[in-house]
This record gives sequence, C-alpha cells and structure tokens, in this order.
Amino acid sequence: MILVHHLRIGRSIFTVWLLEEMGLDYELKVYHRNPETFRSQDDIKAATPLGKSPTIQDGDILLTESGAIAAYLVDRYDTDGKFAPARSDHKAWAEYQRWLHYPEGSAFLPLFLKMLLAREGDNPSAVFKAFADGEVPLHLSLLDKRLAEMPYILGDKFQVPDIGITYVASMAERLGEIGPYKNLKAYYDRNMDREAWKRAKARAVE
Amino acid sequence: MILVHHLRIGRSIFTVWLLEEMGLDYELKVYHRNPETFRSQDDIKAATPLGKSPTIQDGDILLTESGAIAAYLVDRYDTDGKFAPARSDHKAWAEYQRWLHYPEGSAFLPLFLKMLLAREGDNPSAVFKAFADGEVPLHLSLLDKRLAEMPYILGDKFQVPDIGITYVASMAERLGEIGPYKNLKAYYDRNMDREAWKRAKARAVE
Repeated sequence: MILVHHLRIGRSIFTVWLLEEMGLDYELKVYHRNPETFRSQDDIKAATPLGKSPTIQDGDILLTESGAIAAYLVDRYDTDGKFAPARSDHKAWAEYQRWLHYPEGSAFLPLFLKMLLAREGDNPSAVFKAFADGEVPLHLSLLDKRLAEMPYILGDKFQVPDIGITYVASMAERLGEIGPYKNLKAYYDRNMDREAWKRAKARAVE
Repeated sequence: MILVHHLRIGRSIFTVWLLEEMGLDYELKVYHRNPETFRSQDDIKAATPLGKSPTIQDGDILLTESGAIAAYLVDRYDTDGKFAPARSDHKAWAEYQRWLHYPEGSAFLPLFLKMLLAREGDNPSAVFKAFADGEVPLHLSLLDKRLAEMPYILGDKFQVPDIGITYVASMAERLGEIGPYKNLKAYYDRNMDREAWKRAKARAVE
C-alpha cells in the first residue's frame, strides 16, 4: 500500500490522479498550509525530506519529486505497458522521457514566475516580467501546436507524461493564460473529464 | 554518432561531460549567444524544438531536456550498469530517479531566481528575494548533509545523477553561495577534477 504525503493545496493531487489512473492502492496523509502565509508547516517537514509534497512512501522507499515518482511507478508497476511505451522502442522511449522531464525542466519555471509576479501587484519586477512574458507563450504554443496534431502528448493514448502536461495546463488556466491556446485548453478539459481525475478529486480534495 | 547541439555558454557542457563519462562517441554543433542580449539566436531555434540547449540528435531521435537526455542515454547505452543502479533494486532505483529529477524539479528554480535578482542590482524584488532566500539554503544544506555521509549523491560511486547535482553546485558556486556548504564544495571540486570533465572542457569550451 502506497502512502501519499498530500499537502493541501498543491501539486500532489496530480500524484493521486496518477495512482487512480494506474489503479494502484494508496492511502492519503493530509497536511494543511498555514492559512496566513500559505506555507507548509512543521508536520510535513517532519515526515518528508524537505517538507515537500508530493512525497510517497512505498514500503521502505520514501520518494519525492513528481517526475521521479511518476517514473518509479511506471518502472515498477506498469508491467503491461499501459502508461508508457516499450523501452525497446528507443524513439518512443526518448519522447516519453522528454515529456516526463519537460514540466519541471522547462515549462514550470516561467509559469511560476507569473504566479509570483501576480503577488507583486501593480509593480512587477521588470527583469522577471520580461523573462516570463518571453517564455510562457513559447511553451504554451509548443504544447498547443503538438496537441493540434494528437489528442495526447505522446499520440493517441493517454500516458503518464500527460499528468505533468495537464499540470502545466492547469497553471496556465489558473493564471488566465490558456485562452489563446485552444488545443491545450481542449486537452485540459478532456483530461479533467477523466474518471480517474474525478475519483482523485473526490478523495483528495476536501 | 550522437550530435550535441551545444549553446555557448550554457548547460550543455554538462551533457558533453556525461557523454565523456560514458565513453560515447559524439560530435558538437556549436552555437553562440547574441553578445549583447545573451539570448540564443535563430540558428539554434531552427535546429531544435525550442531553441534550447542541450538537445541531442541520435539517429532519427531528437531529444531535449537535460534530465531526459541523461535518462535516455542510461536506458539505452549503460548496458553494464556502470552509471545507474539495477532497475530490479527498487529502493536504489527510486533514489536514482529522485536525484535525477531533483535538479530541475527542486533546486534549479531558486538558484535561477538568485541569478535574475543579481541583474536587478540594488533594487531586488522583495517577493522573489524572499522566496529565493528561503529556498536556496534549504537545498544547499540538504545536499551538504547528504554529501557529508557519502562521496557521491547515490553513495560511494559516481553515477549519472551526479552530473545534475554538480550543475546545481556550479550555480551555487557562481552565485557565491557555496561557501558555507563545505561538503558540497568538496564534492564540486572533486568532480571538476575528473578526467571526463577535463576532456569535456577541452572539447566544448572554446
């Protein structure tokens, strides 16, 4: 049984979604942010390496980082290759790795800057704004173009990297940036309509 | 033969180092930044999906993202398990995934904020500064503590995730932040002294 250290509100709902997609048994240990500072508190800091969520516990394995958790779950439990291509298909496997690493490796940072810029209100930092304004459209249009050609990020089947890409889309949507990217928006809506996402929400969102 | 799209100055020197460690044949295609804006230029944008470096070309496979390239090279070419633990050792494999994803997933962002804050000179943005000042010591001390217990990030052997962790250390060093973290600094110096790093520098740094 996998235990998910689940900080509300945050990224770990996407790990719960992954577990639901894969049909794995899990339990949630829920933590809350400080309602004033919105920072995580001592309880999750005691339970995980950096007080970061998602972190999972699987037997004696304590594992953190969304991408690492996804890779580990696929490598260990996706024994019939439902959620990732065959490793022997080098080209498909390379694409799988690319899109598994892409959210944290590329797209997250400029979107995160946008989130912090929003907190600066009417006086956004020019240096950070220039960077985010340049990079966000680059990434959202890359995804949009790709999703014009295929319904999921690796082709015609939902696979594990779709979880991270949907997370990127959810940030764009929260920031009010997704509008011009119709294919990305349609993809986001399509994934939010999946039964596994709905089950994740029912269990993990209070 | 693997082709590395290598933008000077930037992250791809670490991919070259990885290829040297693994003893793989490669060629470099070198691109330069605009000397005034320090941004990449049209040549690399035409050759790679987002004008980002590192990108490698291996036969008909075009692959971008440092972490994805590392994972792909291990999965495809590290056939005698020199650079990663055995996949059948679930615990070691989980740790491998964790530290492979950690640079982009956690440590890079606050260090990158520090880089942009430095460009703001005497008027750093309070929101960004608070975030970076909180997170940078958290990550550098996590690494420092771990490296007090073991010479490499996965134990007593240099493995592929050490490349990304050394990149994190190199950012800390360039930002003048590494000083208090003696074990991380010793690790960084130790890795900069490796023959494969020296070969990478000789070939890829003009």
